[in-house]
Amino acid sequence: MAAKYITSCIFCRILKGEIPSFKLIETDLSLSFLDVGPLAKGHTLIVPKHHAEKLHDLPDAYLEDVLPIAKKIALAQGFENYNVLQNNGRIAHQVVGHAHFHVIPKPSESDEEGLVIGWPAKPMDTDELKALREEILKKL
Amino acid sequence: MAAKYITSCIFCRILKGEIPSFKLIETDLSLSFLDVGPLAKGHTLIVPKHHAEKLHDLPDAYLEDVLPIAKKIALAQGFENYNVLQNNGRIAHQVVGHAHFHVIPKPSESDEEGLVIGWPAKPMDTDELKALREEILKKL
Repeated sequence: MAAKYITSCIFCRILKGEIPSFKLIETDLSLSFLDVGPLAKGHTLIVPKHHAEKLHDLPDAYLEDVLPIAKKIALAQGFENYNVLQNNGRIAHQVVGHAHFHVIPKPSESDEEGLVIGWPAKPMDTDELKALREEILKKL
Repeated sequence: MAAKYITSCIFCRILKGEIPSFKLIETDLSLSFLDVGPLAKGHTLIVPKHHAEKLHDLPDAYLEDVLPIAKKIALAQGFENYNVLQNNGRIAHQVVGHAHFHVIPKPSESDEEGLVIGWPAKPMDTDELKALREEILKKL
């Protein structure tokens, strides 16, 4: 699959080698490298070699390539507690407009290191869930 | 690949059909269904059909299966802003000890719905990053 890059994107420039990075694993479809502003030591990015803004814009082959890399990163670094995160859209905390994945160690419970998660869950009743499911199934 | 389930795991019981769920997409290797305690309407779980506690314990075939499903879920539900999240370990917010993936819509900037993210980034200097990279490369 031919890589698609754009000149105004910082991740495309890293992928093309125009900007250096602390590379870890490279495959035909992805590049992973250390985040230079880590949430904790070892925070790694996995970037598909294809400019697409969001996860749902990526061809499946790129998507299939990502998580086995995340596994290798976690094993090599010996992470026991960690989060894998991918953000789509500014309000969902996406900062660079080229879909990418974070592997973020969580060394301690402290809010000073690793990903900090807030979880405003609200139970949904069975009828609502059933109706929602029917609605989604029509579009799948 | 033969599915591996254990009796004490709630996700294994859902995968075996012993506990009902609001199923969306099922493949040979994964089941996705609506979270009954959603962070926002449409919050979906993708669960590999293999009992493994953490992402790095899953065979690659299961890992490759996940993100194309997340893409289909996002497209069918029309998510524009959303997070894909996978937590490993209690301090990293893992609640069920069977590796699973969240697709969480972020309908607004409000901390009352969707994933709430804190990002305590600390820049690391170039020499530290270089040394860390060398250390990780030895284990890859």
